Amino acid sequence: MHPLPVMLDRLVVIGVGLIGGSFALALRKTGAVRHITGVGRSHENMRHALERGIIDEIAPDIVSALHLADFVLLAMPVGQTENIMTQIAPHLQPDTIVSDAGSTKQDVVTAARRHLCGNLKNFVPGHPIAGAEQSGVLAAQGDLYAGKHVILTPLEETRTDAVETTVALWRACGAKVSHMPVDEHDRILAATSHLPHMLAFTLMNHLCKSTDTPENLLRFAGSGFRDFTRIASSSPEMWRDICLANRSALIGQMTAYQHELNILMNILENGDGEALQKAFSQARRMREDWLNRQDQS
Amino acid sequence: MHPLPVMLDRLVVIGVGLIGGSFALALRKTGAVRHITGVGRSHENMRHALERGIIDEIAPDIVSALHLADFVLLAMPVGQTENIMTQIAPHLQPDTIVSDAGSTKQDVVTAARRHLCGNLKNFVPGHPIAGAEQSGVLAAQGDLYAGKHVILTPLEETRTDAVETTVALWRACGAKVSHMPVDEHDRILAATSHLPHMLAFTLMNHLCKSTDTPENLLRFAGSGFRDFTRIASSSPEMWRDICLANRSALIGQMTAYQHELNILMNILENGDGEALQKAFSQARRMREDWLNRQDQS
Repeated sequence: MHPLPVMLDRLVVIGVGLIGGSFALALRKTGAVRHITGVGRSHENMRHALERGIIDEIAPDIVSALHLADFVLLAMPVGQTENIMTQIAPHLQPDTIVSDAGSTKQDVVTAARRHLCGNLKNFVPGHPIAGAEQSGVLAAQGDLYAGKHVILTPLEETRTDAVETTVALWRACGAKVSHMPVDEHDRILAATSHLPHMLAFTLMNHLCKSTDTPENLLRFAGSGFRDFTRIASSSPEMWRDICLANRSALIGQMTAYQHELNILMNILENGDGEALQKAFSQARRMREDWLNRQDQS
Repeated sequence: MHPLPVMLDRLVVIGVGLIGGSFALALRKTGAVRHITGVGRSHENMRHALERGIIDEIAPDIVSALHLADFVLLAMPVGQTENIMTQIAPHLQPDTIVSDAGSTKQDVVTAARRHLCGNLKNFVPGHPIAGAEQSGVLAAQGDLYAGKHVILTPLEETRTDAVETTVALWRACGAKVSHMPVDEHDRILAATSHLPHMLAFTLMNHLCKSTDTPENLLRFAGSGFRDFTRIASSSPEMWRDICLANRSALIGQMTAYQHELNILMNILENGDGEALQKAFSQARRMREDWLNRQDQS
């Protein structure tokens, strides 16, 4: 993280958990922000945030928190987006920048268009792609975003300088910032993140129904199985919200995946070894090419 | 690996790659075997085996290799099982024990019933469950089987002492040996190993067909994606053989999996958040329970 001149006077983080807390912590360390106010439901969590020096104050209420805010990060569970936007809209200053950290974007943009109205020019939808196996402010780390990707999906209404400030803040956290259209973001994340989660959850639920006891069935499951199913240990609440938010793109991906699985089943049913090997080789090549590109970047 | 008295005078390993080579190396280290003969197609590979001291001699031909053999391990690619069994059957001594290391067992047992005939009482089907990302004798390690599971699926015809010797040899390699019926082995491996491989290969092939370029599509794929797809980098040849060998059990698993995926898609289409969260929680619990059992064992 490169040290920086002060960029913000007052930052407000709504939802001071792993994501919001790590954002505050990283900016605090760079000295890019003078004062950080935290807004949250859990008294205990907010007290921890204060004790760890992640925030300077716990907002008594949203109104006073927003009074002098330069930048507001929405980092609460995406299920609360509508509710929070309704609450903050009336109290936002004309130039207060609002951004978010949700894993899906179309739903957030729709909510913003419905509730932020006049402040839409100040809204910068964002998605930091950073692991979140634990949650809560105690899991927050100042380097959570170091080297990680952050995708911004600005609206045509969004002010250029609002986008620039948001980019600068994420870069100050050590993140690599990219821009893309809302629909492209949701489509790509559905394919490479949401679909694999559905497939892993489904494998475990399929195995639940086996006539063999879980003990017998999984006794010999090895490292390949452990890695393949790791994402099936993700938070059910968080993934419920993500799936509902990105429902149509995800259903499209699952339908196309089933089609692909049917193709492989037909090859198997025909006992076509050559076609099988070709399919497996293509899959491996696709993955190896990706790994090679990663090593280069 | 616990040191042992000599258990075998002459071991013959047919197919001295990662699996056969590591078996020979482990037994050589324990001193449990006096003389090891290697049989293989690739001259270069066999020369490496000799140079590394994994085998004492390269068999000039199968006939002389089997002449005084006490124990023969079939460790060549499973696609060659029929062919090799046909070749060795006429030259096996009345008490020579024959075992194998194939990932599927019904096909091997069927081949044995067809070709080994009088020697069926000496045949002990086996499956060492040990990682095989690289291949060839240069990848062989003396501790490849340390702490790993080996499943034996003896026939009703199999001599007790043939089973006992096979168990003793794998234990000498440091492996944990289990017994199970052939059909149970193939059913369980189809569910916990072969199915996940099909799902990972299919995801990559599904992504190949995306309208987005692989560069755009996978640019933001993270650690969850990397772990989920790791087994899609497995050997296409090896998995072609495994899938064809365990075809019916695997097709059964894929069909049941698709049914489970349809259930989840219906829940998504109905936007039923409660049912979604319940499904994800059940999946996570199934996995966490498995991990807890592993920690205890």
